[in-house]
Amino acid sequence: MNAEAGEVVRISFAELVELLSAIFARHGAPAHLAATLAANCAMAERDGAHSHGVFRIPFYVSTLRSGYVDVHAVPVVEQFSPSLIRVDARNGFAQVALAAAAESAVAKARAGGICLVAIRASHHLGALWIDTEAFARQGLVAIAFVNGISRVAPFGGHMPFFGTNPMSFAAPRQGTDPIVFDQASSAMAFGDVKLAQIEGREVPPGTGVDRDHRPTTDPAAILDGGALLPFGGYKGSSISMMVELMAGALTGGAFSFEVDRSAFPGAQTSKSGQCLIIIDPSKVAAGDYASRVEALIEGLKAAGQERLPGERRYANRREAERHGIPLARKILAELHSLRDAAA
Amino acid sequence: MNAEAGEVVRISFAELVELLSAIFARHGAPAHLAATLAANCAMAERDGAHSHGVFRIPFYVSTLRSGYVDVHAVPVVEQFSPSLIRVDARNGFAQVALAAAAESAVAKARAGGICLVAIRASHHLGALWIDTEAFARQGLVAIAFVNGISRVAPFGGHMPFFGTNPMSFAAPRQGTDPIVFDQASSAMAFGDVKLAQIEGREVPPGTGVDRDHRPTTDPAAILDGGALLPFGGYKGSSISMMVELMAGALTGGAFSFEVDRSAFPGAQTSKSGQCLIIIDPSKVAAGDYASRVEALIEGLKAAGQERLPGERRYANRREAERHGIPLARKILAELHSLRDAAA
Repeated sequence: MNAEAGEVVRISFAELVELLSAIFARHGAPAHLAATLAANCAMAERDGAHSHGVFRIPFYVSTLRSGYVDVHAVPVVEQFSPSLIRVDARNGFAQVALAAAAESAVAKARAGGICLVAIRASHHLGALWIDTEAFARQGLVAIAFVNGISRVAPFGGHMPFFGTNPMSFAAPRQGTDPIVFDQASSAMAFGDVKLAQIEGREVPPGTGVDRDHRPTTDPAAILDGGALLPFGGYKGSSISMMVELMAGALTGGAFSFEVDRSAFPGAQTSKSGQCLIIIDPSKVAAGDYASRVEALIEGLKAAGQERLPGERRYANRREAERHGIPLARKILAELHSLRDAAA
Repeated sequence: MNAEAGEVVRISFAELVELLSAIFARHGAPAHLAATLAANCAMAERDGAHSHGVFRIPFYVSTLRSGYVDVHAVPVVEQFSPSLIRVDARNGFAQVALAAAAESAVAKARAGGICLVAIRASHHLGALWIDTEAFARQGLVAIAFVNGISRVAPFGGHMPFFGTNPMSFAAPRQGTDPIVFDQASSAMAFGDVKLAQIEGREVPPGTGVDRDHRPTTDPAAILDGGALLPFGGYKGSSISMMVELMAGALTGGAFSFEVDRSAFPGAQTSKSGQCLIIIDPSKVAAGDYASRVEALIEGLKAAGQERLPGERRYANRREAERHGIPLARKILAELHSLRDAAA
């Protein structure tokens, strides 16, 4: 409808991937990396996860141009044991490192029940549910942790320390899309605060503090010298600490507060770590796990939960598959100029 | 000081274990089980975790007398793979089942890097940090999930559905006690709501709703037909769902909402499941993990976090080791009469 008004156009997933791929390639990414990042970002846009969609393209471009990430990095995958894969991303993107380990992670989980994938020296600017949903589509349970760059004050503190530190969990369902959550351990995801700033919206109380440690609902005051706050008080802060200890320390990567990109102006990623735990439920218990998940979901709905984690994303995905991905014409024009810009 | 006023006495850890052990034995627990439960409960009391301390003894006694738990259960431990141990608790206490698997879990984690321990048909009425702290003392990282009986409404719902579903995380530190958190995914732990009711205190807004789905700060209204709420809104609700899918479904145990103890009046436990992930950090990354944890903690303190998760428990522990565990004289008398009661 907005499209008829000339403000919003619809573009197919394949077209969007091609366009984004061309942008990444134009700004220095080799073909395989451009394709990986483009698919990742297009999936987020398709699913209505706007804070990880085309909104991030300028950040990606800025990062690519900064030289902070090694676009030619070839991850080193070490098969440490039947249940542990260590990956040195060699200062490349985490998605590339995970792709290099995913097949053997699945095989290990299927053989022994569980596999830990520890990725270090990696950059992650994408949505984490994309990483976990893919495992759940293969009948596996996946838990993922990623840390980032200091943006969130620990409980009781007022200075940025934690990354927004998302944790994602995905489990297979019976005959339908996996159930997946992906949540920042900050009260609000960084991208959503940034979006609110751009769109001139206030954020809810409890989202953050300003540079003088005072609670504020102004996204600009949070982003300019202030700090985000953890979700759920000290409990969310504990979860953020766990994410640092899993994604940062355990992998051999860096903590959010150790990330230093001062030598790379324009860089928007952080060289830290990602940790995934992949489990084959059929090896852990007798019976069909997916049908047990179904039983829980029926119960959840009966108890009054209206929308499941991930449900809105799937609805957007179906809609996009039928009618294309809606994009503001202005945004599409900006993407075209990024594609056609001088490299 | 209160002890001088005649209201509070101090008792050594060993004495408290002996007393609680005698109570459990008097009410039907065989010696090894009585000793296990007594040590568990005394540790909680020693550390000032009152909602899992002697406060729970009447619930334990009531459960033992109900016949719901098999006090003679011998857990069946199945070494499925180098990284997976499945335990059928055979309707016994989870601590007994975990004790039967702990040594091989440590060995598996040390060999391959990670081990999953999936316990089903188990009862857990103790504090979860006791289970995880023990692994961290051996230099390992431990994550534990336990579900329970329906007490918590999912986000957007008003009916009890989830258990209070704690998740605990423990990691070793350098030369000092491990860092450990253990947090209910409800806004408040059930035991703390019960304690507030007994002591005539209100609970904070957001803790729960009454039987008519209205927010309330009256613990009695929450416990009598109402429901607890998740911590941190939909994010805490998602974590509670994850706990169900890890401790309930993955282990082959029951979901909280499936637990039916109507045939066992007085039972206070739930026959559900417990899931633990044990990781040897020295196998995952080069370098000393404990020193990395230390670096994070230094940063946390510099960023303004005043108290670390678990810090208050350790302070109480040191105090109890020096001066004994403080107990109200009235409580001690009640424990004595439970010990001397007709079986």
